Amino acid sequence: MLVVITYDVKTSGVGGNKRLRQVAKKCESYGLRVQNSVFECNIDAAQLVKLRYDLIKIINASEDSLRFYRLGNNYKSKVEHIGTKDTFDLDEPLIF
Amino acid sequence: MLVVITYDVKTSGVGGNKRLRQVAKKCESYGLRVQNSVFECNIDAAQLVKLRYDLIKIINASEDSLRFYRLGNNYKSKVEHIGTKDTFDLDEPLIF
Repeated sequence: MLVVITYDVKTSGVGGNKRLRQVAKKCESYGLRVQNSVFECNIDAAQLVKLRYDLIKIINASEDSLRFYRLGNNYKSKVEHIGTKDTFDLDEPLIF
Repeated sequence: MLVVITYDVKTSGVGGNKRLRQVAKKCESYGLRVQNSVFECNIDAAQLVKLRYDLIKIINASEDSLRFYRLGNNYKSKVEHIGTKDTFDLDEPLIF
């Protein structure tokens, strides 16, 4: 199934940039970065459990925000992209 | 139906900050901002056509990116939030 993961990590506090990099790297190991803070992961239920668990360990729940959208297996007609399709370099500092 | 709209607007170029503000304000007139660049809009098909048209007029398609995820009417079990639920002030400069 397709799972869209979006996140906001507060980078102004202690460890924020590190958490942001860790979240991005973890998501990239399961899917494709489609925007700065949006990943699309084509994963099964067990992988989602693991990814969710790992992300919860990384974030600071009082400062950061994670959202999961489960689009199921028939997702192609549900997703539309408009505009540029730049790719993102995970080694960038990712400071917004 | 729930439509999740995510966007990246390139703010380093000419007019980028203005486009970013305009995209956010347009999305907010249809839905709820749940993260910096993520809106959830509970709208019908006609509203989606209008919103999509308006957003395409605002963005610079060679620099900015828009994605639409249609989650249908039975979306509540498909969406999960973890972490903080800060609200966002649309009058902020929104410079990342």
